Amino acid sequence: MEYTGRKVKFGVDVGGTTVKLGLFDETDTPIYKCEITTDKTDNGKNILGDICSCINDIMSERKLDRSDCLGVGIGLPGPVTDDGRILGCVNLGWGVFNIEDTLSQLLGGIKVKAGNDANVAALGEQKSGGGRGYDNVVMITLGTGVGGGVILDGRVVTGTNGAAGEIGHIPVNISETAKCSCGKCGCLEQYASASGIVRLAGVYQAEGMKSEKLDGMDGYTAKDVMDGAKSGDKLCLRVADTLGTYMGMALAAVASVTNPDCMVIGGGVSRAGQFLIDVIEKKFMQYAFTPCRNVTFRLAALGNDAGIYGGAALIK
Amino acid sequence: MEYTGRKVKFGVDVGGTTVKLGLFDETDTPIYKCEITTDKTDNGKNILGDICSCINDIMSERKLDRSDCLGVGIGLPGPVTDDGRILGCVNLGWGVFNIEDTLSQLLGGIKVKAGNDANVAALGEQKSGGGRGYDNVVMITLGTGVGGGVILDGRVVTGTNGAAGEIGHIPVNISETAKCSCGKCGCLEQYASASGIVRLAGVYQAEGMKSEKLDGMDGYTAKDVMDGAKSGDKLCLRVADTLGTYMGMALAAVASVTNPDCMVIGGGVSRAGQFLIDVIEKKFMQYAFTPCRNVTFRLAALGNDAGIYGGAALIK
Repeated sequence: MEYTGRKVKFGVDVGGTTVKLGLFDETDTPIYKCEITTDKTDNGKNILGDICSCINDIMSERKLDRSDCLGVGIGLPGPVTDDGRILGCVNLGWGVFNIEDTLSQLLGGIKVKAGNDANVAALGEQKSGGGRGYDNVVMITLGTGVGGGVILDGRVVTGTNGAAGEIGHIPVNISETAKCSCGKCGCLEQYASASGIVRLAGVYQAEGMKSEKLDGMDGYTAKDVMDGAKSGDKLCLRVADTLGTYMGMALAAVASVTNPDCMVIGGGVSRAGQFLIDVIEKKFMQYAFTPCRNVTFRLAALGNDAGIYGGAALIK
Repeated sequence: MEYTGRKVKFGVDVGGTTVKLGLFDETDTPIYKCEITTDKTDNGKNILGDICSCINDIMSERKLDRSDCLGVGIGLPGPVTDDGRILGCVNLGWGVFNIEDTLSQLLGGIKVKAGNDANVAALGEQKSGGGRGYDNVVMITLGTGVGGGVILDGRVVTGTNGAAGEIGHIPVNISETAKCSCGKCGCLEQYASASGIVRLAGVYQAEGMKSEKLDGMDGYTAKDVMDGAKSGDKLCLRVADTLGTYMGMALAAVASVTNPDCMVIGGGVSRAGQFLIDVIEKKFMQYAFTPCRNVTFRLAALGNDAGIYGGAALIK
């Protein structure tokens, strides 16, 4: 697509392996996207410079100057406060600094807005993806871990230290003895992430439960377990039921606090599709307070591009 | 106190028995307060007229005219949307209508902002009470039931149908078989409200557990149970421990979603004071995700006046 003459913005999604960049028009319609490698050498000191070079290249190729650019919205893998301070990104080697000021200066004064990557992806899904048309959206990403983001009245909920939306670490089972990656026991992530699904299947196998699908497999994935559940395998169905129970419980808590109109489920596990939505929604309806039950469940629609869409949406 | 010449606002708190009204100056400092009876006859059709008469009397007594009044903020016992629509107040006999438009018209055009009473009380505590000085405050009211309100960036979180902040109905124990007033089983309210505390003590007595404090008492209150816990009675301590466990779990969920800097505990049960805070905070620290743990716990400071303070704070 070529730029049609209106103002532009950039959405940037900084990950531990690659940085995704998107050029959008002022209505958040994508014009161009690309990816560069995240250079983590020297405590990631080249990352911002690389982003600037890429943005400058994209602009000069299209004969855009700074006054054509409404701003750059950027998602980062760590907590970011409302005023743009990064409170450390371990994955990148970064410490504490104000990324909005720093990056804006490097870009010659272009406005920069930053946020936590999960929160920014949630904003992307709310504005342009599965949550489109809803004002109050909770996004839950079921990947290796469980991430989340909360959008109220179309704005990201950041919280005091940029740690709002950490739905994966809601306690759902205080009797759990296995430890979560965060050091606590009984977090949602232990039952609803890809690794949690594989762990649960292992626990049920170790209890002596048989599985036609999994027994004899030389290692299996969360997809194998969800596929097994879809085909009626009892052990896999029990895993799905446990996932549904704890997702329902955690999302009922989220609904009591924020009363959203839409919940968007994304991440690798969400490839299980409508089956997964059904499993979660059934339990949610059982555990949620009646005035907070009127929630539409949707699958995420933007995949790995949610971050760049959300970055663009940070620029109003 | 007499009015000193600056602009004024009104905070109004409509309850099932009385309506509280407060006159405030533009800095939210109280000037005068009074109370009228809630006239629930004829589906509460006189309530708004009575409020108007009272406001007009207060203004004419002080020789204030409409241009001196910045607005009227009002809390109501039911869900209220962001644009001022009441979605039914069963206690008052009211149906669905826009209270901001209706009351503003009755007051000759004075600006009116409305909210749910628990949310408005939370705003009062955040602006002028236990949560003063904090931007992101969660208020939990432990009374006959458990109510709540969430303030983020100094603004009430209303949610899609005005039902945000319903912390009492967060599911905390999916194994519970006793029913909550809401029809579900295992809500926080069943363990942390005054009636929940008495219920729990009864459950432990029925299990055969002895209590020096409660055995032989001809009916006891939540205060008796909390006093028993303070004096070391084992059964009462077990009740307090269960309350702490489920409050800690629910508030850890709230913290994961909203990352507040302060939680304010109010309502009749909060008269147990620092003992109660200690019981809750200890469990909260155990269940909360590390980046969301940095929360200051405070007792509510405004008592029954929180609603009128919050009403005044609705008017910016």
